[in-house]
Amino acid sequence: MEHSFLAYLRGRCRKLPQVTVGIGDDAAVIEAVQGQQIACVDQIIDGVDFLSAEHALADVGYKAVAINLSDIAAMGGTPTTALVSLSLPEQNSTRIAGEVYEGILEAAAQFDLAIAGGDISTYDGPLAISVTLLGYVDKNEAFLRSGATEGNAILVSGAVGGSIRGRHLRPTPRLELAKRIRQYAQVTAAIDISDGLSLDLDRLCAASGVGAELDTERIPIHEDAHALSTTSGRTPFQHAWSDGEDFELLITMSQEHADSLAAQQLGVPLTQIGNIVGRTGLWQREQGQLKRLSPQGYIHGS
Amino acid sequence: MEHSFLAYLRGRCRKLPQVTVGIGDDAAVIEAVQGQQIACVDQIIDGVDFLSAEHALADVGYKAVAINLSDIAAMGGTPTTALVSLSLPEQNSTRIAGEVYEGILEAAAQFDLAIAGGDISTYDGPLAISVTLLGYVDKNEAFLRSGATEGNAILVSGAVGGSIRGRHLRPTPRLELAKRIRQYAQVTAAIDISDGLSLDLDRLCAASGVGAELDTERIPIHEDAHALSTTSGRTPFQHAWSDGEDFELLITMSQEHADSLAAQQLGVPLTQIGNIVGRTGLWQREQGQLKRLSPQGYIHGS
Repeated sequence: MEHSFLAYLRGRCRKLPQVTVGIGDDAAVIEAVQGQQIACVDQIIDGVDFLSAEHALADVGYKAVAINLSDIAAMGGTPTTALVSLSLPEQNSTRIAGEVYEGILEAAAQFDLAIAGGDISTYDGPLAISVTLLGYVDKNEAFLRSGATEGNAILVSGAVGGSIRGRHLRPTPRLELAKRIRQYAQVTAAIDISDGLSLDLDRLCAASGVGAELDTERIPIHEDAHALSTTSGRTPFQHAWSDGEDFELLITMSQEHADSLAAQQLGVPLTQIGNIVGRTGLWQREQGQLKRLSPQGYIHGS
Repeated sequence: MEHSFLAYLRGRCRKLPQVTVGIGDDAAVIEAVQGQQIACVDQIIDGVDFLSAEHALADVGYKAVAINLSDIAAMGGTPTTALVSLSLPEQNSTRIAGEVYEGILEAAAQFDLAIAGGDISTYDGPLAISVTLLGYVDKNEAFLRSGATEGNAILVSGAVGGSIRGRHLRPTPRLELAKRIRQYAQVTAAIDISDGLSLDLDRLCAASGVGAELDTERIPIHEDAHALSTTSGRTPFQHAWSDGEDFELLITMSQEHADSLAAQQLGVPLTQIGNIVGRTGLWQREQGQLKRLSPQGYIHGS
């Protein structure tokens, strides 16, 4: 069904100025960008990242794009173009492809993404969607994980925990927020929370060669974490600390910039949860003593 | 195993000037290109495109990159950067990833490709490798499928048929050939032969709104097609006509350019097999009469 489906898809894809030749040739021709290019790939698989028996396939398609948009946001970039690789179970493959693409096209329309290429296979396996996203950033202006320095403030967008209640399928990539922050502050490091606040903060710290002292009481706990804790046997804090798939941003900047940013209307809450320290690891101060915190979260394929 | 494997991989990947930030951040930062960008994605799956029980996994990894390089060659482009999405069966996933990457890294080294990003999942399914390839071409110089016009010569590189005997795992992407042809001739249309000479020629003709009159006796039949025909019950010609996975180039240009190109040393044989005609379809002249030929080949997911 590949060629007939791709022909259908070609008709459904909006023409956007960034793509000169889209689906239907050996490769896409895309207009070159100013500055530097951003590129990432992330896949989601039935049974691992979602459950096709429970989740609407359009939501799944949306998620496959949105998690990549979140990566572009974490780089402070602007997304332009997506390439999609679909692996479909042999049963009902055309219906499944159609439903998944409803969500992919919805996300594309919402974020002005061109779908420049697609590959479709049917096989004896579960639905898998791999999305490559291309975008751009001004030269040397990408937010990296590796730039946090001692004294920097650590901020988190939105609220975290309990995304499994449904938010994980329709995350809001913080693209606009990243742009607004850039207007007012110099971001020193950033990462998006995919595997858990503590685990992703630990990664940012490791990439920067620093640690973090957290004021854990200030971590913004999502109402989903509270709701989940009534049945999960875990505290709302534990959910916020380790659940993952929040797709919020963790960013660092000088304390001065963080203080002045607090006065700005950013559209999304941004909460300072601690500061970067020289000593590696995650820490909390209790009665004047530093106590080590253990990062927890979802380790892929562990 | 994702993070530890990606850390290992980061150490194995050569630093190349096109990638400023590679594996290990939320996304890669890639230097912008001159001209236009070329992008394609193609995946191969165990049981569909190869057999892990029969084929060395390093060959499979090599193939996953090479088939995409062939698409870039068919656009007349220069490849620069790859992003790789791996889906691994749960059993022996680290060993499999390591062996597949041996082939991926071999192809990358051979063609000066940077591996800028990777996603790895383990799941209850067969090995699947999706490669996104980025490259560039001078502005408005991409070879498209759609530019063939009546009277154009149709040329094929190398020889075709019987690639299943082993060539399909280690195809030679015709990148250098495409560059050399560009020095001497204006290519009007191009496609690479992935699904069969006749099927891919039919696609080029359909995209251009034309047909082809073929001198079928001039189609260069690979010795693998002869070897295969001794046991397959099909003629060498039938293999050449429809086998696919040759990853040779089919290109069109004016007859004048084709004639002058014949005098050049291109390093790879280039054989004229017919001419473009206004009447759609594939045709052969027999005793002065045009007889319709039926395109045959591998239809994905049919």
